Amino acid sequence: MGVRVAVAGASGYAGGELLRLLLTHPHIEIGTLTAASNAGTTIADHHPHLTPLADQILAPTTTENLQNHDVVFLALPHGHSGSIAAALPDETIVIDCGADFRLSDPAAWKRWYQTEHAGTWPYGLPELPGARDRIRGAKKISVPGCYPTAASLALVPAYAAGLAEPDAVVVAASGTSGAGKSAKPHLLGSEVMGSLSAYGVGGAHRHTPEIIQNLSAAANEPVKVSFTPVLAPLPRGILATCTAPAKPGVTLEKLRTAYEAAYGAEPFVQLLPENRWPTTAATLGANTAQIQVALDEDAGRIVVVAAIDNLTKGTAGAAVQCLNLALGLPETTGLPMTGVAP
Amino acid sequence: MGVRVAVAGASGYAGGELLRLLLTHPHIEIGTLTAASNAGTTIADHHPHLTPLADQILAPTTTENLQNHDVVFLALPHGHSGSIAAALPDETIVIDCGADFRLSDPAAWKRWYQTEHAGTWPYGLPELPGARDRIRGAKKISVPGCYPTAASLALVPAYAAGLAEPDAVVVAASGTSGAGKSAKPHLLGSEVMGSLSAYGVGGAHRHTPEIIQNLSAAANEPVKVSFTPVLAPLPRGILATCTAPAKPGVTLEKLRTAYEAAYGAEPFVQLLPENRWPTTAATLGANTAQIQVALDEDAGRIVVVAAIDNLTKGTAGAAVQCLNLALGLPETTGLPMTGVAP
Amino acid sequence: MGVRVAVAGASGYAGGELLRLLLTHPHIEIGTLTAASNAGTTIADHHPHLTPLADQILAPTTTENLQNHDVVFLALPHGHSGSIAAALPDETIVIDCGADFRLSDPAAWKRWYQTEHAGTWPYGLPELPGARDRIRGAKKISVPGCYPTAASLALVPAYAAGLAEPDAVVVAASGTSGAGKSAKPHLLGSEVMGSLSAYGVGGAHRHTPEIIQNLSAAANEPVKVSFTPVLAPLPRGILATCTAPAKPGVTLEKLRTAYEAAYGAEPFVQLLPENRWPTTAATLGANTAQIQVALDEDAGRIVVVAAIDNLTKGTAGAAVQCLNLALGLPETTGLPMTGVAP
Amino acid sequence: MGVRVAVAGASGYAGGELLRLLLTHPHIEIGTLTAASNAGTTIADHHPHLTPLADQILAPTTTENLQNHDVVFLALPHGHSGSIAAALPDETIVIDCGADFRLSDPAAWKRWYQTEHAGTWPYGLPELPGARDRIRGAKKISVPGCYPTAASLALVPAYAAGLAEPDAVVVAASGTSGAGKSAKPHLLGSEVMGSLSAYGVGGAHRHTPEIIQNLSAAANEPVKVSFTPVLAPLPRGILATCTAPAKPGVTLEKLRTAYEAAYGAEPFVQLLPENRWPTTAATLGANTAQIQVALDEDAGRIVVVAAIDNLTKGTAGAAVQCLNLALGLPETTGLPMTGVAP
Repeated sequence: MGVRVAVAGASGYAGGELLRLLLTHPHIEIGTLTAASNAGTTIADHHPHLTPLADQILAPTTTENLQNHDVVFLALPHGHSGSIAAALPDETIVIDCGADFRLSDPAAWKRWYQTEHAGTWPYGLPELPGARDRIRGAKKISVPGCYPTAASLALVPAYAAGLAEPDAVVVAASGTSGAGKSAKPHLLGSEVMGSLSAYGVGGAHRHTPEIIQNLSAAANEPVKVSFTPVLAPLPRGILATCTAPAKPGVTLEKLRTAYEAAYGAEPFVQLLPENRWPTTAATLGANTAQIQVALDEDAGRIVVVAAIDNLTKGTAGAAVQCLNLALGLPETTGLPMTGVAP
Repeated sequence: MGVRVAVAGASGYAGGELLRLLLTHPHIEIGTLTAASNAGTTIADHHPHLTPLADQILAPTTTENLQNHDVVFLALPHGHSGSIAAALPDETIVIDCGADFRLSDPAAWKRWYQTEHAGTWPYGLPELPGARDRIRGAKKISVPGCYPTAASLALVPAYAAGLAEPDAVVVAASGTSGAGKSAKPHLLGSEVMGSLSAYGVGGAHRHTPEIIQNLSAAANEPVKVSFTPVLAPLPRGILATCTAPAKPGVTLEKLRTAYEAAYGAEPFVQLLPENRWPTTAATLGANTAQIQVALDEDAGRIVVVAAIDNLTKGTAGAAVQCLNLALGLPETTGLPMTGVAP
Repeated sequence: MGVRVAVAGASGYAGGELLRLLLTHPHIEIGTLTAASNAGTTIADHHPHLTPLADQILAPTTTENLQNHDVVFLALPHGHSGSIAAALPDETIVIDCGADFRLSDPAAWKRWYQTEHAGTWPYGLPELPGARDRIRGAKKISVPGCYPTAASLALVPAYAAGLAEPDAVVVAASGTSGAGKSAKPHLLGSEVMGSLSAYGVGGAHRHTPEIIQNLSAAANEPVKVSFTPVLAPLPRGILATCTAPAKPGVTLEKLRTAYEAAYGAEPFVQLLPENRWPTTAATLGANTAQIQVALDEDAGRIVVVAAIDNLTKGTAGAAVQCLNLALGLPETTGLPMTGVAP
Repeated sequence: MGVRVAVAGASGYAGGELLRLLLTHPHIEIGTLTAASNAGTTIADHHPHLTPLADQILAPTTTENLQNHDVVFLALPHGHSGSIAAALPDETIVIDCGADFRLSDPAAWKRWYQTEHAGTWPYGLPELPGARDRIRGAKKISVPGCYPTAASLALVPAYAAGLAEPDAVVVAASGTSGAGKSAKPHLLGSEVMGSLSAYGVGGAHRHTPEIIQNLSAAANEPVKVSFTPVLAPLPRGILATCTAPAKPGVTLEKLRTAYEAAYGAEPFVQLLPENRWPTTAATLGANTAQIQVALDEDAGRIVVVAAIDNLTKGTAGAAVQCLNLALGLPETTGLPMTGVAP
């Protein structure tokens, strides 16, 4: 089997991570790679680590260039996926790493993105209740945002099991690659090293409605979410601290039981043994999430901490995981399970 | 004026930061410096940046060695300050950077520290309502913990103004110096660089009761606090994201008005203009806190972010600020107000 | 084929990296893992990223525990490998990541290590002239030090081609994992983040004789080497800047030709195209070295820069590469070729 | 005394560091601050740490705006200082942080900068032989480059004392602020954190002729210099490893004697006691250089390591030190001597 794959937006961080994973995937043949303003340059100009592709030239991101592939990954700025996806054949598997097809509510899309809603595709977080079945064999899949991945893996089991009140607080610190590769002064190494900063405070980050969507679906009622992202001095990694009031009668045992039931059979989610806590370093470059749960009886709150690599399980790894499901391959094919630590 | 100062615990990070600040304080004469297992070594062995003190030898931490100073700073492990303080003359100004005298409730002390309560001293966060008057001219002062400093500066004005419900969530990321200088494997550079990790989750961190004490005093009712500390890859700095449900009718304008009233005249607290957000880098080595407030109307929550340097405003800078008040000096004497950035 | 492998010293950084690589090696079955003072603890206690081995208990490092394996990797402190190796059967493949069998001159060993010389094994840097043939099928192999790997890959082609005078200067900055996992105060995150420091200056580092040995063998005359290691604030990576006076008549073209001849067919050494320079990030977690050469005509010097991951190509990756050669497998089996960047 | 100071180029890193130091200088009144494309924005837009200047608006960098000040600091891109300096009154003290007036040889300027030579001003490294007298009372002063400061402090005493052969090798790792604040992709935090990279290899960096000039002046003969800069993952700090062949008969004692003679009375240069090595962290934010010397008898080489903060002693601190000399003030006025560590 040689599945021919194109990547649109191959010069960015999500594109680079997709290529890193695809290079060692046993069933993939890498085809056309495209870029916008970087068309005409080589992979080595953008990704010096991707040695085997060093000399491949980036083609312009056009529908023509993406035709004639079995699979097209879209790693484009938000708003660019809809028209390209519409122009590709129905039988082409299209996996979108952008936001365009994540939200099911057109009004929410319009409020947060101020453009027309492109539609809703199966949501590529197989660990959510029912999600895996919708992804398996799908031709169009929408990969979740990195923060929603961490927050949803952290809180969905609590909501699905009826253990948490619908009033969540998520504070998630992220490495800088989550902000992409555009050269903005506040993302310079001199600015970010040795610094922690908040941004998008007060519910202003566009990942907020996606978190609300996932938690509300699990809770089967609207969940309020206060989400604050924090920029931290590391290239990769998200550590999400997620808390919600415990419903009456919740015990730590019930909590752990719910999480063990949710994740016991999941290859990419590790519910840590008691007294161990997630670290992003353990997930570096891996498609793995580490999760731990606690019950703060004084505060009456469930606290769940999740660690992922924002570029792997948070983006490109999830995309490959979904591709495996779409192709009917074993879900773990070609995906690293151990981080590069220390 | 030449105020003669001793520092007990001078080989640790809090001690080193005290010395850095005292070296440029115009009214201080540095006297005896002591250590426990490091007695007999020199300052240069522990603090290569403190050039003017390089050759000074650390004496053992005994009451005798601390006698005959106008001021004694205690930068000792928790539980060691009580007996030393008791043996020093009443007229000696003693400023304790440890936890021993922070909590007013003996039962809380006992629960969290499992030892006898040493007592309660005036609490050295002058920006809290009423605190400055208790510190001014005091002979014994208890310096707050670094996390409680950030969390209290962030949330006290909201509680004091009756704007927040008594159910706070604090998630605070800290640089590694907050964990002290003991050589533990998980604090090795190889482990912490490139990693974010949680610890003390579920209300297990000993700074929790101190945050509760400060917020409850401001609210004039018991405040529940869910506190999660996060270890981040930088030497110094705390970024605390603090949130609580807004009381009915709270607007962003009311919120800003309350914070402007609280901090407008404070030399060391900057309430940032709208659309700017705190960064720890801006406070590096400075006795400055940066604060910003937001109202998340969807989530019904006040969100306040505070940035400090955990060793300066979070520990040693606060200690010197209190010393200035104790001595009747201008409060800003000898304290840096601008961070070392980038 | 299921080659049964033991790792002695599995709780340290070299051991952990070996396990990370062996977990995805298609022909390996991981057997006994041992440790000294950490015997009785689990892999998860030391390597939270090595999920599939989390619960495996470390056995004491004894010869008995290492018997009955096809391959034994030794990742022990210097001086501990000799006696263990001597007690293992002749047919056991033993690959030593320590220094014990690296030096061919017993006098040099004695001068630098002050103990009896254990012997000399085939030197596990297959890219050196003639080395691959000595490793192929060998039963005992000595893996090079991390700095000598970088310095030798950088300068051996120049010496082997007679282009450089025998008076080299090597300044190599390394991430902190090269200093191992022992909890020393100067290796704390608080100390190393945001700092660059020199150590072992003036030829005092024990990797010096190994660099001299490799360069002198290539030059076929004694080469003087000034080696200075620098501790840099990153967990992994060595960037070695290596320079030597150019022999008369050397041109950049001749220089590149020599390096292209040396490395054109090497799977793990990338001679970069002109105008690109090595970065350690491009090699993170990969068994890859990046090399670039320059001729400084004003200074009359060849300057070669090499980047590697000290734990992968610098230690554990080289060990697995040698194992592949020892077993007669394709040399690249199970070894990552692309770094985890950004 | 209220010396009125203007800073041209106040939005960059050198400008920001100048302002940080000037804010606590007891004799300075900060006047006009200018910028090029950033004119019209405020200091807070660029330097959130400079609280007391937060609202000051940047004026355009024109000669008119810089008139009517006692002192003008120029922190401009290379090539922009000449015309501005020419238009300012003779009695105005102008201190140029750029390269324009550093080189004494017009041919060298032309070769390295491809423009007309603006001239040569007294060179602002007071620690060089004879330099202090030329700076004292001068009206125009050229501040050295950051790498030349480190390399010259490291090697000049050896050359001035006739201890080193004229064939130096300098490998200096620098924090990213040395590359300035322009938003280039390779300077993004995601790219530089966790990475070491070389650039300007083979004598291509423009600081090379400045190092040659200083060492040759000290040696009283032309010194060949191989200079390689390395980009390291920290915001500030240069660690320069500098080596040259020892002349016959040189001993470590002679070497230390020469350095003690050179630096024993210098307030800002610390020759460390034996067995201590420089770290950049010890100099963070301070106008201090740390120096250590070694003699490698096997290699026949002197090795000197120097640590500075590239923005302080390497740029803005040196500028203020020169201003003090120009004004006849004590040389240490307003300059921090202890770094912010850890």
